[in-house]
Parts: sequence; structure tokens; C-alpha cells
Amino acid sequence: MKILPEWLRGYRRSLLAGDMVAGAIVTVMLIPQSLAYALLAGLPPQMGLYASILPIVAYALLGSSMTLAVGPVAVASLMTASALQPLAATGSPEYVALAMLLALLSGGMLLVFGALRLGFLAHFLSHPVISGFISGSAILIAVGQLGHLLGVKAGGAHALDSLVNLAQALPSTNLTTLALGGGSVLFLWAARRFLALWLARAGLGSKAADMLAKLAPMLAVVVSTALVGWMRLDASSGVSVVGAVPQGLPAIGMPSVDVGAVSQLWLPALLISLVGFVESVSVAQSLALRRQQRIKPDHELLGLGAANVASALSGGFPVTGGFARSVVNFAAGANTPLAGVLSAALMAVVLAGFTGLFHYLPHAVLAATIIVAVVSLIDLQTLREAWRYDKADALALLATAGGVVGFGVEAGILVGVALSLGTLVWRSSHPHIALIGRVPGTQHFRNVTRHAVQTQPGLVALRIDESLFFANAGVLHDTVEAQLAQQPDARHVLLVFSAVNQVDVTALGVLTELERSLGQRGIGLLLAEVKGPVWDRLRTTELGQSLAGHVFLSTHEAFEWAGSLQVARVAVGASS
Amino acid sequence: MKILPEWLRGYRRSLLAGDMVAGAIVTVMLIPQSLAYALLAGLPPQMGLYASILPIVAYALLGSSMTLAVGPVAVASLMTASALQPLAATGSPEYVALAMLLALLSGGMLLVFGALRLGFLAHFLSHPVISGFISGSAILIAVGQLGHLLGVKAGGAHALDSLVNLAQALPSTNLTTLALGGGSVLFLWAARRFLALWLARAGLGSKAADMLAKLAPMLAVVVSTALVGWMRLDASSGVSVVGAVPQGLPAIGMPSVDVGAVSQLWLPALLISLVGFVESVSVAQSLALRRQQRIKPDHELLGLGAANVASALSGGFPVTGGFARSVVNFAAGANTPLAGVLSAALMAVVLAGFTGLFHYLPHAVLAATIIVAVVSLIDLQTLREAWRYDKADALALLATAGGVVGFGVEAGILVGVALSLGTLVWRSSHPHIALIGRVPGTQHFRNVTRHAVQTQPGLVALRIDESLFFANAGVLHDTVEAQLAQQPDARHVLLVFSAVNQVDVTALGVLTELERSLGQRGIGLLLAEVKGPVWDRLRTTELGQSLAGHVFLSTHEAFEWAGSLQVARVAVGASS
Repeated sequence: MKILPEWLRGYRRSLLAGDMVAGAIVTVMLIPQSLAYALLAGLPPQMGLYASILPIVAYALLGSSMTLAVGPVAVASLMTASALQPLAATGSPEYVALAMLLALLSGGMLLVFGALRLGFLAHFLSHPVISGFISGSAILIAVGQLGHLLGVKAGGAHALDSLVNLAQALPSTNLTTLALGGGSVLFLWAARRFLALWLARAGLGSKAADMLAKLAPMLAVVVSTALVGWMRLDASSGVSVVGAVPQGLPAIGMPSVDVGAVSQLWLPALLISLVGFVESVSVAQSLALRRQQRIKPDHELLGLGAANVASALSGGFPVTGGFARSVVNFAAGANTPLAGVLSAALMAVVLAGFTGLFHYLPHAVLAATIIVAVVSLIDLQTLREAWRYDKADALALLATAGGVVGFGVEAGILVGVALSLGTLVWRSSHPHIALIGRVPGTQHFRNVTRHAVQTQPGLVALRIDESLFFANAGVLHDTVEAQLAQQPDARHVLLVFSAVNQVDVTALGVLTELERSLGQRGIGLLLAEVKGPVWDRLRTTELGQSLAGHVFLSTHEAFEWAGSLQVARVAVGASS
Repeated sequence: MKILPEWLRGYRRSLLAGDMVAGAIVTVMLIPQSLAYALLAGLPPQMGLYASILPIVAYALLGSSMTLAVGPVAVASLMTASALQPLAATGSPEYVALAMLLALLSGGMLLVFGALRLGFLAHFLSHPVISGFISGSAILIAVGQLGHLLGVKAGGAHALDSLVNLAQALPSTNLTTLALGGGSVLFLWAARRFLALWLARAGLGSKAADMLAKLAPMLAVVVSTALVGWMRLDASSGVSVVGAVPQGLPAIGMPSVDVGAVSQLWLPALLISLVGFVESVSVAQSLALRRQQRIKPDHELLGLGAANVASALSGGFPVTGGFARSVVNFAAGANTPLAGVLSAALMAVVLAGFTGLFHYLPHAVLAATIIVAVVSLIDLQTLREAWRYDKADALALLATAGGVVGFGVEAGILVGVALSLGTLVWRSSHPHIALIGRVPGTQHFRNVTRHAVQTQPGLVALRIDESLFFANAGVLHDTVEAQLAQQPDARHVLLVFSAVNQVDVTALGVLTELERSLGQRGIGLLLAEVKGPVWDRLRTTELGQSLAGHVFLSTHEAFEWAGSLQVARVAVGASS
């Protein structure tokens, strides 16, 4: 195994300019975001900065995306808060230690999944379920931040809870805080809506304009911090500010691992890993596609796992690939993960010497950046499309979103996983099996319900359009019995295996039992178009031996054979 | 909805003789089994009898099998003990109350699953996993009973644990108990092995001989009880006996429902429901098949759910359909569930007047009946067959059995469920997609790796052998990209939808993204053989609109069209 990643071994000088520009721009986005998401997770601000250094480097060494920006993100931060709040007081030393442990568990799980090559697990959450989960989380996050905007303490486990608390706290609103926070929301919303357009009209390229508009949160942070610091609004008007952020790089060390805590955190860690991985891979994949690059899901597991372990070892909390920063990184011209490494280095410089600058940063402005960021995650388009295209998928989306808003992120994602798995089991246990007949004058056989075809008296011919395995073998059996109930004079059942690529032990058992039970009723089981590898295995079994002479190369031959028997029988009947 | 079940409304007198004989014979089997399985579950003996009355009647009203014998069974009893032992002292009043609550929860879940028509869930445990689970449980049960055989107290959570405790307790073996228990094991083993054969040789019909041999446990119980009672071995030699069994029918009442206990019992209850249902349905189905009857899985859920609720309300513990008793019931000529109802009536008579007969029944003899019964559940044949046919399935079997023996039933069944679900997700995320070409001189298209076919330059033609949905849509995308990497001069990608019956929202998204990203590279996406219902939905989408003119009725037409373009392009190339 080579130590250095491929992008680094093959690094060319021409790539450097793009990586440097992207690294610098992403850093300017990352500073307010990392502070804000630490706030959202209920952690001290410096942990957001810690989580934006080593994790990025670790991902750069093991991940497979060239442009994914790893670090604290909104949904994982919300899930962190939701996992820790029942276990310790928000922001207490135990809470901080548990956050690091959560990152360690999540990272360890991702590494194990990567080592076992379980990248395919990304496929097992459906798109509507993910969309519903993200939208629900966004609503929950936005509602949760309203208290900061008003300058009141009004937390709550669920959205409704928070709103009730908020309504009660409304009279004690801090108007200066509201002005700062509300003003920031308006400014950020306007920037998102109009700034890029306006900059483009003013002569900037539309790409550059887009990117500059993305830096509006930094502008809000700088202006509001300066304002609060200059007018000492924290002392005079009680505006809640970030306060002293410890200067210096994070200490490296193993978080304390408590068995009792592990038993309470493994499920949240698993859910954070799963959601983070799925989100990350889908962002990375859509970006890679635009440059004809490829993402390897198993490498993504390793990269994200290493990033979380690095976060845990350096005083951070769960991280994953973020949507907004990755898009900016891509658009700003990042060519390789070196962009991320440069951004990590800049964050280290900020931590080493400039944390004093954040002292007067108002919480309300951080809350404003969170609210404006997450509102854009609310995905009504997928809901609209799903509603038009497939109501069942739309309902799964709504159920997941409703679960998150009504009962919290864990309940929501569990609802989503259960819906996805339920769909999978349901689908797998409903294979397509078609009753077929001959297209007149040909050797072709088609579904009797779709085509005008001829059937062979005494023969039930079924084409199985899927491999046979434990989840669907029972249905094959039921289908055969149902067909026989409709054709009581059947003498043979023909199974056309043209689409059967595999028959597992459970299905073998069902087929063996079927052959035996048909035999007791004097009905013969025939197979046709069995693929080579499938027959190689079947041949040596008890079923294979008792089927000898009843396995036909083509459906046509099986029909001919059954037809000749029928003719012989009719002849005997006539002569007797 | 009709109140009376179909079998009762259509009951004919001619069925009565079979039902009466079977009911009587099953009762003689059921008495020692129900006492033994109560012992195994750590419950007082009368609870085994209670669990053999109302549950049978409840199943008779709602179930769909004509011959399934419901009541206490070995594996569910083991799972009950394993669920309750961490929560209360074995046999204590709390323990008894929790056992009833467990039956109530399990029954409630089964009823809900039945109402939601989730019978298809039975398909989601593979046969090797079930076989491994049963075999592992049988080993665990047998090892756990050895202490009773030696007359020493030597329990243990896991098999190894029990064996170590047993070895330590060996010096205090009660030799009289060992003689009774060991003698019973030898007698029961010999009866199982030789009695039927010997009876058949002595002139009995082989079916009657088989059935008589099945009554050997009752004989062992009668003889040993008489011996112990006559010689007062309990007092003189310290042989542990059943003792006083409260006389009288069970009191009917709601078990006490404690919220804390529910939060600890829901998972075991779910696992007991799942395992019990799967086992029950497979027994019921294999018996029904032999008489061309049909089992309705959704009705089985309702029947088993009602049986467990009835058990909970009448002082019993979790029940399900048992293998051995069902087979005897069937062989003894049971025609309808009336056989079970008669058997329940006989059990009620025993409870009302004859429980005194069990006073001197030695625990060692009950343990002997359990050991001999469960050893026959160890299923080496499936392991052998799986090993020969499919190593992956054999390993799943061994892992599940190993999990049960090494870490207990809950861990074992969770391993089994995880393996089954993992297989399902893996399979679903690996659809069969074939690169196809034209069979020379025909309009047929086949897999290029299996047939000598002609491909069309500039055209990547892929046949998708499965419906497209969230678990496999990602793979379609990867396959297309991998093929394009091998054919960099491709101008069109043709997807043949002949086996695609459905495209869900996730897959629609992947196809839309694929079409867009191919378009950016100047590669056209073509579809062929799209089924009517699939196209009806696709047509109105963004994808459907941008595909207009690129959807062909047959693969042949698509090949012709791509070929004509290619010719045109070559001609332009030549003339320029």
C-alpha cells in the first residue's frame, strides 16, 4: 500500500493556483460556519475551529473526492446536540468529553465499514427519505435558533416544544439583540437573493459574483463584531457574545472512553455515521460527475472515518462533508484536497493568534447565519416532484420530515431507515413473475396479460424476472399454487429461468419442496433457459437429479415437448 | 366479517373421528412438554399447562393452518428465560408477571403486524439463518439442562458459562437423580431410534408405530413419577421433584403493564414474535402443502397474536406453533383446529382435577425429555447442503449458530437478522446489467459475454434486468460510467428497459442526472422497450421531455438509428 495519496504523488504545479484561491475562499466561509455549528451543537466555539483542522487533513489523505469540504455541518451538529443533551448539561466538561467520544465512535464505525467494504450501504436510504430528513432537520434547526435571535433562553427537544417556550419568553426579548440578529437575517437573505445578481450586473463574472455573495456571512460577522465591540453592546445592552475563545492549537489526546457512555452513544453514533456518509457521498458524487471524476464509496468511508477520529483526537466533534462549502470549493477552482489542507492551515493560524477577534461576535449573528443557511436546505422541489411522480415516495418523505420535526432527529432517521428497509423487503418479496404464452407463428414467448399469445393446454408456463433468493422464493411457490388453482387440469409447470442469475439455499429448498409436492399430485416440474452457472450448481443437488430430463434449453423446446405429451394423452383417451 | 372461522362453519361430522384421535394423542405429548418448557423458561409448572389451553382456542379462531399445534415450545421458552433473567429472580412473582407481559407485548405486535398485512416479513430471514438459530438454541438448551440431569444447580448465561459452572458442581452430583435422568435420556433416545422400528416389526402399521414411539416421554414421566412417589426418593435421596402444582383453571386477567418493563421487553418481544412467526409459518406451510391446503401469512400473524394475548390473559407465557406436536397432530389425522380445541379441553380437565399426579415427577426426567427433543432440532443436514451448494449461506448459518451459543439467543438472532438484511441490501444494490449486442442476422440482442454478438460502434447498449429503485439506481450510474471509460468514443448510451417494471423517485433522479451529465459530454441517452406503465409516468417528467425522440420501441430500432447516425458521421468525416 502506498502511503501518499494519488493526488499528492501526481501533484503538478499548474494545479496550485486553483487550490490556493479555493482554500482561501473556503476559509472565509468556514470561520463563521464552524463557530456557528459549535453553537448549534451546544459546544464552546473553539471546538468548531478544532474540528476544521485535522479532520480536513485526515480526509485529504484517505478520501476519494477532489473537492469535498469536510468539517462541522448543520445536520450532524444538530444530531450531536440531540444525542448529548439527555446525558450531560449543555457545554459542561462532561458534555464536551462526550462530544469527542461521539466523534470517536462514529469515526471508528466508518473505518470498520470501510475496511469491510460496506460502501454499498449508502444505497439503502432512498432519496425521498434523505430529502425529508434534511428538510425536517432544517426546520428543527431554524426553530431552535430563534431564541438566540431574540436574545432569550428557549430551548426545547422538539420543534413544537421550542416554539411554546419561545412564545412564553417573548416578553423578555432583547431588542438590541433582535436588531442585530434580525438585521443579519435580512442582510444575508438579500445577499443570497440579490447580491450575486447585482455584482454580476456591476461587471463581475457571474461565477465570481456567486462566490463573493457566499462571503456575505463573513461580512455580517465582521461588521456586527466591530459594532458590538466599539459600542460595548454586550455590557450596555446585554447582547450575548461569544466571549473569550482560548488561543492556541488543540491538544492532541485520546478522549476518555467510558463503557456506560459507549452503550448510550453507539446508536446516535451509528445514525450520524450513516447520515453523514450518505450526504457526503451524494455531494461528492454530484461534484465529481461534472468533471468526469469518480468517487469510491469504500474510500469515502475510510476518509470520513479518519476525519472523525482525527476530530475526536484533537478536541473536535462529529464532522462530515458539507454541501455549501463543497460547492464553493469546487466553483472557486479547487483541483485537489490540497485546497482543504491550505484551508486547515489558515484555520490553524487563526487559532494560534487571532481568536481574540471573535470576542465581541454576537450569538444572534451566528444564529442568523445558521438560519439562512439551513432554510436553503428545505427541499420542497423533491417533495413536489415526488408527489407528482409517486405518492408513496412523497408520503415516505413527509413521514420522515414529520418524524424529525415532531419527535426529534433520532426518531426521524429511524422512521426513515425503517421506511427504506420496509420498502426494500417489500420489493424484494414481490418479484415479477409472468404467465407466458407463445407469440403465434414464432418461437417467442410473452406475458399473456400484455400480448395476444397462445398457451399450451395442460402447461403452466411462468417466466421469473429476478434471481431467486430467500426474500422472494416463498412468493414463487405461492404464485405457482395460485396458477394451479386456476388451471386444475395442468399436468406440467414450466419455470423459465432466463432472468435467474442465482438460486440461493433458501430458494433451492423451496424449489425442492415444490417439485416434491407437485410430484405427489402427478404434476411435472420443467425448467427452461437455465443459465450455465446456475445449472452447474443445481445439477449436483437432489433437485437437479430428480429434474433430469425435464430441463430444456429453450422455452420453445419445453412447449413442444409438453405439446407432444398432450397429443399422446388425447390420442390414448380417444382410443380407449 | 364472519365471526365463526371457515373450518367451523363448514364442519362435517366425518371429520370428527380424526380430530378426536389427534386431539387425544397430542394431549399425551403436550402434558410433559408443557411442564418441561415451563421449567426451561424458569416458570412454575402450572404456567406451562395454562399456556396450553386458551392460546390453542384463540389460534383455532383466527389462524389459517388446519394442523398447526400451538403452545409452549423450546426456543420461545429459552428466549423467554433469556429476556427475563436480567430483570427479576427466576420464578419470583415479578418474573412470572414479566413473562405474562412479554406474551402480551409479543401478541400485540403480531396482531399489529397482521392488521398491517406485514406477513411478507416472514421472507426476510433466510433459511440458513433460521436453521443456524434453531441449532444454536438447541445446543444452548441441552447444555442448560445438564444441571437438572445431575441434580446440581449450575445455570449460566451462555453455553460456555454453563459448562464451566457444571464442571465445578460435578462433585456434588446426586447419583439417584443422575440415574433417573440418565436412564430417561437413554430410554427416550432408544425409543426415538428403535421403538418405531420394533413396533412396526411387531405387526403395527408404520404410521401407528411412529406415533406410539412419540408417546415415550409420557411413559418415562409416568414410570419415573410412580417410582419416586412409591420410594419417596425426593425425601430419601434428595431427588428434585415438581412438587405441588396448584389445582384449578387459570384466573383470567390483564397482566400488570409497567412502562419501565415495557421499554426493556419490547426488543425481546419483537424477536420472539419474529422467530415464532417464521418457525410457525414454515411448519404450517410444509404440512399444508402435503394436503394441498394454503397458509395465509397475514392470518397466521393474527392467529399467533391472538394466541399470545390469550396466553398473557390466562397466566401463560409466549407460545407459538411447535414442530414436533404439529407433525404428530397431522399424522394422527387431525382435519381441523377442532383437534387442538379438544386437546385444550383435555388440558383443562387435567388442570381442574389431576395436578396432584405431577407431585413426584422428577425435574431430571423433564430435563431428559427436553434434551432428547432439542437434540433432534440440531440441523446438520442444512449445514452440509449449504456448505456444498453455497459457502456464503453456510457461513451465515455458522455465524448465527455461533452467536447463539457464544453470546445468547438475542445476540444470535440479531446477528441472523443483520446477516439476512445485509444480504438483501447487498443483492438489491447489485442488479444484473448486461452489455448487449446483436445476434448476427437477427433482431435479437444478447449479453456480449455469453454470446457471439455484433456491437454497434459508438453505442453502449445495456440491458437492465431489474426494476430501478433507490437501492440499485446508483449502480446503474456506476455501470454506465465504467462502460464509457472502456469505450471513450461512445456517442450514445442505450438502456434497454425490457425488465424494468418500475422506476422510483430516487432512480428517476439518477436517470435525470445521468442524462444531463452525458449531455454535457455530447453523449446521447436512448431508451428502448420501455413498458407502457413506466413510460406513462416518465413522460411527464423533466427527463421524459428531454428524452423525446430518443425512446425506441425495440432494441433493434435503436441500433438501426444509432447505426445510421454513425454512417452519416463517417461519411461526413470522409468527405471533409
